[in-house]
Amino acid sequence: MKKMKAAIFVEKGRIVLDQKPIPDVGTNDALIKITTTTICGTDIHILKGEYPVEKGLTIGHEPVGVIEKLGSAVKGFREGQRVIAGAITPSGHSNACMCGCASQDGPDTPHGFKVSGGWKFGNTIDGAQAEYLLVNDAAANLCAIPDHLTDEQVLMCPDIMSTGFSGAERGKVKIGDTVVVFALGPIGLCAIAGAKLMGASNIIGVDCIPSRMNVAKQLGANHLINFKEHDAVEQIMKLTDGRGVDVAIEALGNEKTFQSALKSLRPGGNLSSLGVYSKDLTIPVDAYGTGLADIDIYSGLCPGGKERMRRLISVLETGRLDLKPLVTHHFNFDDIEQAYDLFANQRDGVLKVAIKL
Amino acid sequence: MKKMKAAIFVEKGRIVLDQKPIPDVGTNDALIKITTTTICGTDIHILKGEYPVEKGLTIGHEPVGVIEKLGSAVKGFREGQRVIAGAITPSGHSNACMCGCASQDGPDTPHGFKVSGGWKFGNTIDGAQAEYLLVNDAAANLCAIPDHLTDEQVLMCPDIMSTGFSGAERGKVKIGDTVVVFALGPIGLCAIAGAKLMGASNIIGVDCIPSRMNVAKQLGANHLINFKEHDAVEQIMKLTDGRGVDVAIEALGNEKTFQSALKSLRPGGNLSSLGVYSKDLTIPVDAYGTGLADIDIYSGLCPGGKERMRRLISVLETGRLDLKPLVTHHFNFDDIEQAYDLFANQRDGVLKVAIKL
Amino acid sequence: MKKMKAAIFVEKGRIVLDQKPIPDVGTNDALIKITTTTICGTDIHILKGEYPVEKGLTIGHEPVGVIEKLGSAVKGFREGQRVIAGAITPSGHSNACMCGCASQDGPDTPHGFKVSGGWKFGNTIDGAQAEYLLVNDAAANLCAIPDHLTDEQVLMCPDIMSTGFSGAERGKVKIGDTVVVFALGPIGLCAIAGAKLMGASNIIGVDCIPSRMNVAKQLGANHLINFKEHDAVEQIMKLTDGRGVDVAIEALGNEKTFQSALKSLRPGGNLSSLGVYSKDLTIPVDAYGTGLADIDIYSGLCPGGKERMRRLISVLETGRLDLKPLVTHHFNFDDIEQAYDLFANQRDGVLKVAIKL
Amino acid sequence: MKKMKAAIFVEKGRIVLDQKPIPDVGTNDALIKITTTTICGTDIHILKGEYPVEKGLTIGHEPVGVIEKLGSAVKGFREGQRVIAGAITPSGHSNACMCGCASQDGPDTPHGFKVSGGWKFGNTIDGAQAEYLLVNDAAANLCAIPDHLTDEQVLMCPDIMSTGFSGAERGKVKIGDTVVVFALGPIGLCAIAGAKLMGASNIIGVDCIPSRMNVAKQLGANHLINFKEHDAVEQIMKLTDGRGVDVAIEALGNEKTFQSALKSLRPGGNLSSLGVYSKDLTIPVDAYGTGLADIDIYSGLCPGGKERMRRLISVLETGRLDLKPLVTHHFNFDDIEQAYDLFANQRDGVLKVAIKL
Repeated sequence: MKKMKAAIFVEKGRIVLDQKPIPDVGTNDALIKITTTTICGTDIHILKGEYPVEKGLTIGHEPVGVIEKLGSAVKGFREGQRVIAGAITPSGHSNACMCGCASQDGPDTPHGFKVSGGWKFGNTIDGAQAEYLLVNDAAANLCAIPDHLTDEQVLMCPDIMSTGFSGAERGKVKIGDTVVVFALGPIGLCAIAGAKLMGASNIIGVDCIPSRMNVAKQLGANHLINFKEHDAVEQIMKLTDGRGVDVAIEALGNEKTFQSALKSLRPGGNLSSLGVYSKDLTIPVDAYGTGLADIDIYSGLCPGGKERMRRLISVLETGRLDLKPLVTHHFNFDDIEQAYDLFANQRDGVLKVAIKL
Repeated sequence: MKKMKAAIFVEKGRIVLDQKPIPDVGTNDALIKITTTTICGTDIHILKGEYPVEKGLTIGHEPVGVIEKLGSAVKGFREGQRVIAGAITPSGHSNACMCGCASQDGPDTPHGFKVSGGWKFGNTIDGAQAEYLLVNDAAANLCAIPDHLTDEQVLMCPDIMSTGFSGAERGKVKIGDTVVVFALGPIGLCAIAGAKLMGASNIIGVDCIPSRMNVAKQLGANHLINFKEHDAVEQIMKLTDGRGVDVAIEALGNEKTFQSALKSLRPGGNLSSLGVYSKDLTIPVDAYGTGLADIDIYSGLCPGGKERMRRLISVLETGRLDLKPLVTHHFNFDDIEQAYDLFANQRDGVLKVAIKL
Repeated sequence: MKKMKAAIFVEKGRIVLDQKPIPDVGTNDALIKITTTTICGTDIHILKGEYPVEKGLTIGHEPVGVIEKLGSAVKGFREGQRVIAGAITPSGHSNACMCGCASQDGPDTPHGFKVSGGWKFGNTIDGAQAEYLLVNDAAANLCAIPDHLTDEQVLMCPDIMSTGFSGAERGKVKIGDTVVVFALGPIGLCAIAGAKLMGASNIIGVDCIPSRMNVAKQLGANHLINFKEHDAVEQIMKLTDGRGVDVAIEALGNEKTFQSALKSLRPGGNLSSLGVYSKDLTIPVDAYGTGLADIDIYSGLCPGGKERMRRLISVLETGRLDLKPLVTHHFNFDDIEQAYDLFANQRDGVLKVAIKL
Repeated sequence: MKKMKAAIFVEKGRIVLDQKPIPDVGTNDALIKITTTTICGTDIHILKGEYPVEKGLTIGHEPVGVIEKLGSAVKGFREGQRVIAGAITPSGHSNACMCGCASQDGPDTPHGFKVSGGWKFGNTIDGAQAEYLLVNDAAANLCAIPDHLTDEQVLMCPDIMSTGFSGAERGKVKIGDTVVVFALGPIGLCAIAGAKLMGASNIIGVDCIPSRMNVAKQLGANHLINFKEHDAVEQIMKLTDGRGVDVAIEALGNEKTFQSALKSLRPGGNLSSLGVYSKDLTIPVDAYGTGLADIDIYSGLCPGGKERMRRLISVLETGRLDLKPLVTHHFNFDDIEQAYDLFANQRDGVLKVAIKL
C-alpha cells in the first residue's frame, strides 16, 4: 500500500504533517494529485477544537490538482486533466440535491437532508491538504481548469469565492442596490466582489484593518467604514440619507455584526448571513420592526458541485474578476505547519495562503 | 359640521364610543359609510397601551361599507358601491410601493420607506370602527364587493386573510410541501388555509384549544398537535420521519413558538414569521445549524391595496374557501365596548367578532 | 440468459409484445419488476412513426413495480420494495441537473445539456412496458410507494401528473389567479388539478368532449367552454370582464390552441406550454402586443427524479387529490396490443389505461 | 394662455416644431421645463406612420428638466428641482401597478390592465420634445438628479437604459452566464451593459456596424460577431463549445434575429425579447425543441416610475457605468427637425442625439 503525506488532525491544537495510505478509488470516485491547496478559517476552528472532527482525519477542502485515477463509472473527464472540486461535494442524487439544496445533501434515505451534509472534505472524509485526495461522486464534482489559468488564480473557487458570492446571491442583490458587507476577511471581500458583479451601485465595506479595506476598494467597495473610528450603523444611515441599505451581508459569524447588519437595513431589506455562529444570536425587536418590517434573513453553506465551479472559473477566465490580491503568502506543503501558525494567528496581513505541492 | 359615532382611544385601558366630525373628502380620498367591521388583536394591544397611538384616534382597520363620497381624482368607482379597503392602505406612489414593498410605504421623500408605513387606519389616521371612514389614496385601495357575497363573508379580507395567506406566500409553500403553523388564532387559521391553497400536502397545526384545532381541520390541517399534551417539535419530527418541515409559520409573536418553528424545519427550510414581537428574539445556534443550514427567515406586514383585495375576494367568490367559521360572535356598533371586553379576554371561544352598523 | 416479455417498437405502425433478455444490473442501476404501467400519447407518436426511436426498443416510461435487484452503489432502498420512477430519469450529476434543469440532463461532458436528455425510458434506453425495467442512476430516481396506496393510485405520477402540474408551476399560478387550460386530455386535466392546488380561484377548461369536461369539473375547473359551440377566446374575455386570464396553459401541442392561449392572456400574463409541437408555431403580433405586453412564454419537459416523485405521492397520500377518474380502462400485459389500439384511436372515452403484469 | 414650442406630429412623414399652449397643472401633476431631451426609434416609427398617434400630439418620452410647477397633492419635490421622469409613467394605483406590472398600467377600472398602458408621453398624452411637459401622477414619476450629473449623463435613463437593462433582468442573467445580444443599437448596447452589471462572464454582441461593435466592447462585450461576415448562430455555438448561451437578448424587433436568438440558446435557456415587432413571429419547431427544451421567452415594455429612475441614476452616479458614448450628436431644440432627419436616416454613425433647450 502506497503512502502519501497529509495534514492530519491529531488533537486540539495539533494538525501535523504525517504519512497515510493513498486511498483506493471506487466506481464513482476520482483520485486527485493535489498541486495547490490552502487553509480556511474553518480549519483553524478544527485546529482549536471549536469544530469537532475525528482524530486522524486529513484536513482541508480547497483542492487544485490533476486527475490521477478515475472510477469506472465517471465519464466526461480524463486522467491527467487539471481540475478543481468544490469544498462542498454533493452526491447529486439525494433529495436535498434534487430540490436545489445540494449543500444540505444527506445520506441515501428517502429524505436525505442533513445540516451541511454536502461538506465532506476535511469534515466527514479525508480532505485536500494531502498529496492525494479522493473525490466522492466525481461526476458531480470535478471541474476542468482552462490551461491559461494558474492554480493560484482558481484557488479561491472551491470555497471562498463560492461562499462570498453566495452572500450577494442569497441577498438577491439587484442593479442599483446599496449593499453593506460587515467584516472584510477573504469571504467578506468575495461578497463585495459578488455584490459588484450583481450590479450593486453603492457598496459599503466595514472593517478596521486598512490593508483589507484597500483590497475591498479594489474589488468594488466605494465606501469604507472603520468601525473602530465610527459607529458603523450611524455612518451607513448617513450614507443612505437615513434610508438604510437594500442588502446587508454578515461575513464574520458574530452577534454584534449580525445585529449591526440588521440595523443597517431599510424596511423590506435582506440580511444575508455568511457567518458560522458559535453562540445563540439575539434579534433586537426594534431592529426587526417588531416583525413587521418585511425583513428577510438568509443563511447558508457554500454552494458546490461542478456547475458552480464552472461558472466561477468562467468569471475568472474572462477577467471579470481577479482574486490574486487575496493570496498574500506562499508555502511549500512541507511547511504547512508554519502556514497554519501564520494563518491561525493572522500575522503579517495574511488573507489567504497558497500551499504548493 | 356633521358628527358620527366612533370607537376612540382615550387612554390605556379605555376605548370608548364617542362623537367625532365626519371627515372632509380630499381629491384623492373616498368616504366610506361603514356597514360592518371587526376588532383585531392589534386593537387590543392599543387598548392595553402596548402599542402607542395618539389619544383621540379612531381605532380599527378592517372596513366593509358603501362609498358615500369620492374625491374628484378617484376614477373607476361610483358612490353607492359596496367596497372594502385593506387594513394597509399604501399610497401606490412611494418608492416602497414602486419596488414591491407597499406595506412599508412611507412619506413622499426621495426614499419613502418607513416600517409599517402602509398601516394607516387606526394607527396614524382615523380608523374603521366608526360610522364613516376616510380612505386615503382611494384609487389604490378601494375594492368592489360582488353582490352575492355578504359583508361577513368578506370581513376577513382586509387583514386576517391577507396576513394569514402572506405567511404561506412568504414561506414559498410549494405543491407537496409539509407545513406547520404554530398558534391557531384567526391569523394562524388563515395561514393554514393559505398553505392548503398553495398545495401543501401535509399541514400540521399546533395549539391547545380544541375548538381552534377543529376549525384548523376544516380549513386544511391534517395533523393537529396539542402542545400542552405533547412536545410539539418532537411530534413534528415523528410525523416527518425525522426530516423536519419544509415551511414553518409562526402566528403568535412569541419567542417560544418562534424557536419551535425554527427547530421544526428541515435543512433548507423556510421560517415564515407572522408574529408581532414585543421582546428581543433569540435564535438558538443549534436550531440555526450554526448559520450553515440554508434556513431563511421571512417576516412582514399584511399586504394591502386593491389588487390584493380583489384576489382575496375572488377566492371567496368562487368558493375555494369559506371563512365564516372564523366569525363566532356578532355585535351592534353601539355595543362595541362589550365586544372589546369579550375579545380582549378571549371569552366564549371567540375567534372574530362581526360588528354591524 | 433469462428472458422477459416486452412491448417492442418494430417499425412504423407496429409495437408488438416479444421476448427480450432481462438486463444486467450495473453499479448505479436498479432492476424493477413491473407490476403496473400505462401507455402515453408520446408512445402513440412513436407507434405512428412521428417520433423516431431505434427499432427493437422497448417502449414505455411510466413504471410502477418492485425492486428486483439493486446495483452495489445504490443506497437507501431495499430489494422487494415497491417503487415508482419518473418518466424522466436524470443522472443527478450533469451540469444540467446541477443548475436546476434536470429534464435536459445530457451526457457526461463539461456542459451536459441536451434537449430532453433526461427522457431515457422508451426513448434512448429500454422502457417500462416490459416485465423488467432497468432504472439508470437509481439513487436519483427510485421513490418508495406507501403501503396503502395502490399501483393505480400512483400510476399517473411518473409522467401525466408531473407534466400537468408543471404547466401550473411554470405558469407561476398564484392565489386568486384566473387560469385557462386548453385541451382536457390527461395532461390538461392534471394541469387543472395543479392550478387548483396552487390557489387559482377561477379555472376555465376548454375542450369539446363532455366526459373530459366532467372530469375537469371534478378536478377543479369552475368554467368549461366547448370550443365547438363557442369561440373560446371570446368566452374567456366575457368571463374575465375583458381583462384576460393571468395564466394560460396549452396542453395539446397545436398552433391553434397555442394562439388561443396567447389571445386569452391579460397584459403581463404567462403562457405555459405543455404541448409537443410537430410544426413551426406562429405568434400573432397583435396577441403578443407587438412584444410590449410583458407576456412570458414558458415551455418544458416533465420533471422527474425521486424528490419530485416523493412530492407527487404525498399529494395523493394525503388525499389532496384523487386521480383515479383518469384511469378509465384496464388490460393485462398480454393484451397490450389491444390497449394500444384502443388508446391510439381514442375509443370508448379512454383517458388512461392501466396495464397489469 | 401662454404658448410654448413643441415637436408635433402633423401627418405621416411630418413632425414639425410649432406653438402649443403650456398645459395647466392638475392636483397630481407636475409641469417640467425641459432642458434636454432626445429622439427614440419609436418616434421614427411614429414619423413614418408605422405607429399611430393622434395628429397634433407632441412627440417624445425622454425628459430631463426642472420642475416649473407642482400640483397641490404632489409631496416630496420642490419647484426648481432638476428631475427626470421615465418614458413610462404609471399611475401607481391601477391593478396592473399593484401587481408589479406597472408598464401595463391601464385606466381606473376594477381591472386596469392595458397593453403598454403605462406609456403615455408622446403616445396618449403630449410628450417631452417641447419647452414644457406635463407629468401625470407626478408623485410616482419624478426623480431628482444629483447636482454633479449633467443632463446628458442621465439622458438615457428614461428609456434606453431602462429598456436595455430590462433585457438582462427579464432574461434572469446570473453570475457566470454566457449572454448574446442581437443588434447593437442604443438598446442592445444597454442590454450589454446590463448583462455585465448582472455578472455575465461571456457577453457576445452581434451586429454589422463596426462603430457600434466598438461601443459594445467598451460596455462589456468580450466577443463580437459581424453577422455579414459569419453565420452568427454557428459562431455562437463555436464560442460555447456547442452548448449554446444561457440568455439570448433580441434587441431589434425582427423575425430573423428572434429566430437566431432562439437557435443560440442552450436547453433550459432564456430568450429575452426587447423588440417591437411589426409582423407575426414564427418559432421554428426545432429551435424550440418541439416545446420540450425548457426554453422561456420573456418580453415586455420599458420599466418606469421614480424608483426605477432612482436606481438607474445611482448606477451612473457611482460610476458603475458611463453611457456618454451613446450620445453621438447634439442639437438645439430649434433644429429638432434636422435631428429627426439625421436620426431617421441613421447617418453619420448616430447612436443617440442630445437636444438642448
